[in-house]
Amino acid sequence: MPVISRKGQAMPESPIRKLVPFAEEAKERGVDVIHLNIGQPDIKTPQVALDAVRNNDIEVLSYSRTEGTDLYRKKVAAYYAGHQVNITHKDIIVTTGGSEALSFVMGSIADAGDEVIIPEPFYANYNGFAVAAGIKVVPIVSRIEDNFALPPIEEFEKCIGPRTRAILICNPGNPTGYLYKKEEIQKLAALVKKHDLFLVADEVYREFAYDGLRHYSILQEPGLEEHSIVVDSVSKRYSMCGARIGFLVTRNRSVINTAMKFAQARLSPPTYAQIASEAALETPQSYFDEVIEEYTERRNVLVKELSKIEGIRVARPQGAFYCMVELPVEDADDFAQWLLEKFELDGQTVMVAPAGGFYATEGLGRNQIRIAYVLEKNRLIRAVAILKEALKRYPSA
Amino acid sequence: MPVISRKGQAMPESPIRKLVPFAEEAKERGVDVIHLNIGQPDIKTPQVALDAVRNNDIEVLSYSRTEGTDLYRKKVAAYYAGHQVNITHKDIIVTTGGSEALSFVMGSIADAGDEVIIPEPFYANYNGFAVAAGIKVVPIVSRIEDNFALPPIEEFEKCIGPRTRAILICNPGNPTGYLYKKEEIQKLAALVKKHDLFLVADEVYREFAYDGLRHYSILQEPGLEEHSIVVDSVSKRYSMCGARIGFLVTRNRSVINTAMKFAQARLSPPTYAQIASEAALETPQSYFDEVIEEYTERRNVLVKELSKIEGIRVARPQGAFYCMVELPVEDADDFAQWLLEKFELDGQTVMVAPAGGFYATEGLGRNQIRIAYVLEKNRLIRAVAILKEALKRYPSA
Ligand SMILES: Cc1ncc(COP(=O)(O)O)c(C=O)c1O
Ligand SMILES: Cc1ncc(COP(=O)(O)O)c(C=O)c1O
Repeated sequence: MPVISRKGQAMPESPIRKLVPFAEEAKERGVDVIHLNIGQPDIKTPQVALDAVRNNDIEVLSYSRTEGTDLYRKKVAAYYAGHQVNITHKDIIVTTGGSEALSFVMGSIADAGDEVIIPEPFYANYNGFAVAAGIKVVPIVSRIEDNFALPPIEEFEKCIGPRTRAILICNPGNPTGYLYKKEEIQKLAALVKKHDLFLVADEVYREFAYDGLRHYSILQEPGLEEHSIVVDSVSKRYSMCGARIGFLVTRNRSVINTAMKFAQARLSPPTYAQIASEAALETPQSYFDEVIEEYTERRNVLVKELSKIEGIRVARPQGAFYCMVELPVEDADDFAQWLLEKFELDGQTVMVAPAGGFYATEGLGRNQIRIAYVLEKNRLIRAVAILKEALKRYPSA
Repeated sequence: MPVISRKGQAMPESPIRKLVPFAEEAKERGVDVIHLNIGQPDIKTPQVALDAVRNNDIEVLSYSRTEGTDLYRKKVAAYYAGHQVNITHKDIIVTTGGSEALSFVMGSIADAGDEVIIPEPFYANYNGFAVAAGIKVVPIVSRIEDNFALPPIEEFEKCIGPRTRAILICNPGNPTGYLYKKEEIQKLAALVKKHDLFLVADEVYREFAYDGLRHYSILQEPGLEEHSIVVDSVSKRYSMCGARIGFLVTRNRSVINTAMKFAQARLSPPTYAQIASEAALETPQSYFDEVIEEYTERRNVLVKELSKIEGIRVARPQGAFYCMVELPVEDADDFAQWLLEKFELDGQTVMVAPAGGFYATEGLGRNQIRIAYVLEKNRLIRAVAILKEALKRYPSA
């Protein structure tokens, strides 16, 4: 038998994947499973984007430009200008989701054996892209007690070695919901300049900032032009995850030129998705205002309801649409499986994401879960009630 | 300044890329550039596929299933059954183009430093995916004098070493147009079984077989179940390159499970494109019959016209829509650039793909070009006339 690569063996499974068969079985038993585990918004995609695809007049569905058309990228640059970021279309490569931008970035800045520092907990797929590229993730713990704020900058400095190539942050954070303050970004900026590293920011949740706070992009930070690389995506912004359009944004010409070679190898991003994404730029501000209001209310309700449960700790999120929760259980993996396998409350249960998969350090986050508040309020309230009852009944609690 | 990865520096540029600015300048001068250089068919996309997207009723454009829906994959399995290939939907992962399938395959079967044997000339982007994964391409020369038939199997055997993981073929071939015979596939099958290697076949041009010949898939070869991996795509089949849908097909469970982990990291293939691709399966046989007839005529015309030019050698293609031509020039790169920069015939010139980029062995193919016959007949005839005149006038000819 021919053999699988070591890298392929090392590739991590999605942390939720293991639970899927249990969720399916629960559904087969007639249980209503409330999904708190996925980052798929329920918000309607802007009509203007849906219409653009329905009204397309393509006759030959041909390859598009590798980096996206000039026109589309110019419009995206204008979108950034509206967010206090001054770039031109030449600083943008259109990718197949933020996912592809992440893998182009990793390929462009690090070789096998090189290191990228990432505050943990972090978006689990960073692991996948790192393993695929042979890159070593060096985690730095951020703590639920601090709402997952940036760990002390000395912690980063301690981890910087000869193979360190970049610091990667997610802002606002998945799974943390933490929105980095300008001063935190500036500390990181000083650090990467001092050590000649890249600062990569995954800003796919940029729009989702609550409580009147404003997202501060690494692209706004002066003097960071050669260091900053942003990963962006239309997936969450316009609730169009299925489009598969994202961006790699940087003013560093070498990075653009290198990423372009990775982009050329895969030919082009999807055409229909670009039509939808270009049209989505016409989405009226009222759409975002409503969405932010909706998420803020959901966040408020969720945190309030969770806080009523004894023995749990909630990190108050101010961005994205995730909430990390520490439970009075030993093993959230086991608890999450038990919720699907053994528990129900009047025919309902919940599916949560155990947080272990968001940590690189073995053993961390074992009693934490991530809740995505992409459900309407009443269902969230019900979900928390179910969780509360479940914690009472859970045998090892 | 932070540094680019060595891998990023080593990533090859697309061989045609260098010529693009010259083509643009020629167009600015008002010259009509006939593109013989690209594999973008001019054939209309099947109406049923275009209509399915126009009539879609999506409200929330959400992530699809990582591996494609069961329904779609079952339909794809049925398509294969119609091509004498017996597989189930569990043997299929839907990917973002054949391109993504190629990179999942490379990641799943080879680690950095491992080797993959590929007959050259080959599809240039194999190089890109190999460099991205740190894989060493070991080329075996196939010759224009033999129409690029499979090199003697002993040549392969000689190259197999401890790091060899797979043999990769493209059937029918881009850029060669060669369609492997059943016996050639069987020789390769015996070899990979003997040495416990994978046999990877890029069969994206499967439908394009001429002169009554039939494509023989590695998936039809008995006893090869654990060894064979097919890369497939809707791009050329339905002239829908912009969709970005492809497939990884194998009966080897370890490969499927491993590739699934790469697939999970990037979440899902594009949704609209899957709608188009699923509908495209309803394309009537008459569409393919007409397309084959059209390409056969184009091929005939092209080869006939080219044969009239003195001093050139043409490989007679029996598949795909490419034709390799040896020219009486020393450096096809220079000639191709000259065609765009310095030459015109009554306001027209041609853009060709110099073949050097299709060879891994330095210096091979320097006097060859690839012509893609994705233009209608009269334009092809005109293009060859331009080429003929150009060869007369080319200074170093
Ligand atoms: C933090 C973060 N980055 C990147 C992505 C990738 O998203 P996409 O590839 O859909 O743009 C996600 C998706 O959930 C995410 O949460
Ligand atoms: C031989 C071969 N394989 C794979 C591809 C990739 O095609 P796609 O990613 O559009 O499916 C191409 C495209 O030209 C090709 O010629």
